[in-house]
Amino acid sequence: MMDMNNPGAANKELVRNFYHLALNLKKPEEAVARYLGPYYRQHNPGAADGGEAFIAFVRGFTGAFPGLRFDFRRFVAEGDLVVVHSHLVRQPGDRGMAVMDIFRIENNRIVEHWDVLQEIPETAANANTMF
Amino acid sequence: MMDMNNPGAANKELVRNFYHLALNLKKPEEAVARYLGPYYRQHNPGAADGGEAFIAFVRGFTGAFPGLRFDFRRFVAEGDLVVVHSHLVRQPGDRGMAVMDIFRIENNRIVEHWDVLQEIPETAANANTMF
Repeated sequence: MMDMNNPGAANKELVRNFYHLALNLKKPEEAVARYLGPYYRQHNPGAADGGEAFIAFVRGFTGAFPGLRFDFRRFVAEGDLVVVHSHLVRQPGDRGMAVMDIFRIENNRIVEHWDVLQEIPETAANANTMF
Repeated sequence: MMDMNNPGAANKELVRNFYHLALNLKKPEEAVARYLGPYYRQHNPGAADGGEAFIAFVRGFTGAFPGLRFDFRRFVAEGDLVVVHSHLVRQPGDRGMAVMDIFRIENNRIVEHWDVLQEIPETAANANTMF
C-alpha cells in the first residue's frame, strides 16, 4: 500500500515488491508489467536497457541458480532514489554476495537501475559480517 | 557547513568531507580525528573495527596506489544513513571500480560503515556506464 504522504516509504515498498517478485518469486514478467516504467535505463553491465532485457537477464540468472534468494537487509530512500543492501545466496552452501542496488522512480514506476556486487570472502578482519 | 534544519544534507556533507580527506587528500589521521565517532564498526572484510585500523587500511591502500581517486557520483541520505556511489580509479589507465558505501552517523560523527566494490568490465550490454 502506497503512503502518498511519505514518498520515501512508498518508493521503498515499490522497489521491495518489484525486486522480491522478480528475483525471489521468479516472476520477472509480472514484476515488469506491474512496476516498471515506460523505459528502464540499465547500468548493470550485464544487461541491456528495457523491460524485455530485464526479463531475459533474470531468466538467465534464475535458470543458472533456480534457488537463488535475495535477503534484503536495509533500504535507504531520498527523493526519487531507493538504495537496497542485500545478501544474495545463489545455492545451498554459497557464502553469497554483498549487493547494493539503486533504483530511480518516476511517476511511481521504476525507470533506472545501478548495482554493485561483491563475493563475500571466506575470512574477514572483523566479526561484523558484510551486513 | 552543517545545516541543522536538514540532517540528510548535513550528514551527506559530513561523509563527503571525511571520505575526500581520507582517501583523495590521503590524510586519514586528520579525517579520523575530525569526523569519526568514539567507535567505528567496520563491515568491509579487509579492515578491523576502529579508527586506528581505518588509518592503517587507508595507508596500505594509498601506499599501493598513491594516485588513487574516488569520484563521488551520487549521495542518498535517510535518517542516520548516507549512501555514496563512487567511481574509484586506482592508477592511470585503470577502468576502475564501481563502489557503493553506506555510513551511519551518530551525534554528527561517523560510527559504522558497509561497502561493496566491483571491477568495471571492459565491455557492457548497455551504453550507460556503471554510473
